[in-house]
Amino acid sequence: MLIVQKFGGSSVADPARIGRVADRVAATVRDGHQVVVVVSAMGDTTDDLLALAGAVSANPAPRELDMLLSTGEQVSIALLSMALAARDCPAVSLTGGQAGIRTNGFYAKGKIIQIDTRRVRAELEKGRVVVVAGFQGVSEDGEITTLGRGGSDTTAVALAAALEAGLCEIYTDVDGVYTADPRVVPDARKLEVISHDEMLELASLGAVVLHPRAAELAKLYAVPLVVRSSFNNGPGTLIKEVDDMEQAAVVSGVAHDANVAKIGLFDVEDRPGIASRIFQELAREYVNVDMIIQGAMRDGRNDIAFTVSRDDLPRALEAVRRIQDQVGAKGITYDDGVAKISIVGAGMVSHPGVAAAMFEALAEAGINIAMISTSEIKVSCVIRREEIEEAVRVLHRKFKLGSGS
Amino acid sequence: MLIVQKFGGSSVADPARIGRVADRVAATVRDGHQVVVVVSAMGDTTDDLLALAGAVSANPAPRELDMLLSTGEQVSIALLSMALAARDCPAVSLTGGQAGIRTNGFYAKGKIIQIDTRRVRAELEKGRVVVVAGFQGVSEDGEITTLGRGGSDTTAVALAAALEAGLCEIYTDVDGVYTADPRVVPDARKLEVISHDEMLELASLGAVVLHPRAAELAKLYAVPLVVRSSFNNGPGTLIKEVDDMEQAAVVSGVAHDANVAKIGLFDVEDRPGIASRIFQELAREYVNVDMIIQGAMRDGRNDIAFTVSRDDLPRALEAVRRIQDQVGAKGITYDDGVAKISIVGAGMVSHPGVAAAMFEALAEAGINIAMISTSEIKVSCVIRREEIEEAVRVLHRKFKLGSGS
Repeated sequence: MLIVQKFGGSSVADPARIGRVADRVAATVRDGHQVVVVVSAMGDTTDDLLALAGAVSANPAPRELDMLLSTGEQVSIALLSMALAARDCPAVSLTGGQAGIRTNGFYAKGKIIQIDTRRVRAELEKGRVVVVAGFQGVSEDGEITTLGRGGSDTTAVALAAALEAGLCEIYTDVDGVYTADPRVVPDARKLEVISHDEMLELASLGAVVLHPRAAELAKLYAVPLVVRSSFNNGPGTLIKEVDDMEQAAVVSGVAHDANVAKIGLFDVEDRPGIASRIFQELAREYVNVDMIIQGAMRDGRNDIAFTVSRDDLPRALEAVRRIQDQVGAKGITYDDGVAKISIVGAGMVSHPGVAAAMFEALAEAGINIAMISTSEIKVSCVIRREEIEEAVRVLHRKFKLGSGS
Repeated sequence: MLIVQKFGGSSVADPARIGRVADRVAATVRDGHQVVVVVSAMGDTTDDLLALAGAVSANPAPRELDMLLSTGEQVSIALLSMALAARDCPAVSLTGGQAGIRTNGFYAKGKIIQIDTRRVRAELEKGRVVVVAGFQGVSEDGEITTLGRGGSDTTAVALAAALEAGLCEIYTDVDGVYTADPRVVPDARKLEVISHDEMLELASLGAVVLHPRAAELAKLYAVPLVVRSSFNNGPGTLIKEVDDMEQAAVVSGVAHDANVAKIGLFDVEDRPGIASRIFQELAREYVNVDMIIQGAMRDGRNDIAFTVSRDDLPRALEAVRRIQDQVGAKGITYDDGVAKISIVGAGMVSHPGVAAAMFEALAEAGINIAMISTSEIKVSCVIRREEIEEAVRVLHRKFKLGSGS
């Protein structure tokens, strides 16, 4: 079987760890598999490079930052290939460009538009492990572009899709996908199998084992994924297409994200095109908007509230202030003391009353809900940040997700 | 005028030094010139990367070493471009491959076979400084190959030749080319102008301001060169085609190289093809042979002696031992306690007796000569290593090269 294995920065942080990754890859080859490995930059390399950039320029150009940062993965692929060869496991390293990863050319936030797999396939046919630099590709003009956050996960899943790999293994520093964050809920249970839809919701909701972009791509191309630890031999969590949705758990897990801020525009004009104007302006600033609530209208006026990542709050505020007059908003409020809690489950779609049970459990614990957003397989609530851990424990218990349940 | 400026690793060792390089480049642009900058890896980067490679593999493949080491220059070009932009001096960084530098594909010792200057010219026309990674290029197959020792000097001179630049400035940590090593001869004088031929001989003889490969290329394409300090504003030494050889100094300088070893094969067969067999075998091991002496023959037997760099001694000995029987050598000797001293001067060709004066001066100082080699513009002698500094001072005085002469 052709397997794509992805190892993050902490898994290749020093030569000893690179050696352990090489041991694992070599063992997979001995088991009779073809292997493509995707690696990130070693440990703190990216931070070190950013510090150098900061020391020479207050405002480095994205193109030059990509030129700089892409060296981090290039170092990792060379070292891992050497470590594999030292284990009599023939290997060849390829930069993103050499591996045929074409991007749209946007610096610092490139998107993969195509993968020309000829070189990778040719190397696999020669019996080599192919070690590919994650997080990077080249544009049509041959410019090096990095893929932004979650880039290495995305490289791995995209390669697995393009090569029609039998499995894509994401090695990380946790054992798999849990019913809730084990640091918050001590009896949280590792899930053996979940659906792509559930993984996508969990990834988007702040469960950090897999980046949402990669989860989305895995769902789109039905790539079978495993999330597992690079520090032990546990089986991890398998993410696959679930054939029988009726069999799925009603609630698979509780996810939370403390890195949330809320922005409100009140008394905006109630006419067509207003919401579109607001969210276009935010998109231009590359602010990802998460939950959106449009309040009850009264006298042709409207309130609009939405959440963004806390990091994006300054840019988001700038954007809405710029268009405040255009959309006739009387005022702008913001709150960076909030958090988001969500329940996710593929079986939710066929079980009414799950959302009500969630609201009831939070109310019983005296936790106030500021915003609500739902999809077919998840319910999210915005609450005060200081209540988030208590909320996770309450819901984990309510839906009987614990190992003692 | 189009100027190519090359800065070595010590000139870009940290962000502050990169800033000073950017100041110098920006000043050149303000003077109305177009500038292409070639930079090496920062300070000890290459050693640090080699240490990492050594920690994961006892014998890393040259291809993977090139993949690893080429990141060093890529970091430098990105940082220098950022530092230039921060000084309102538009700049763009290009890897060797992006700058159109095509190599023959030999890893670790690639040779430049062609430079496609279209991208560099296009960027210059946009009013940008072009910052090119030294020491690297790509093969026809898109494989990253480094150029080996002196690679960044070679990149700079080759780019200057291909772009028909008006000047190629090599910035280094010394003030220019001296009549002898100032650490050995306190009254050594900086030369204002020397010919390409003299520079080539001096470079080959261990004067480390410019790598011999770059000096050779500069001579071949008649590239006007300046060797100057990156730490002050001294004018350096200009290297150019000398129109009137008659005007040239008889002896321009004394060069020495302590990094020499001598190998002898005695009693080899005296028949055609023997020398060729020996030196082919050495070439296969990439050993550069410097001086070659074939002794007087007696009874159909012959002695052959040659010098190599001390670093190459183990590989050279292996090579000659392998073919000892084939060439019928009775024995092999070696001596790594020797050094080479040379006098260089373009005027030597029209002044007989210079070599004799050299031998006489050494004899008067009680210094024994083990081997002699001459060209039109230089005379080299192999002597004991412990006598080399005394020999440099003796010859510097003999040919009246000092500032007090």
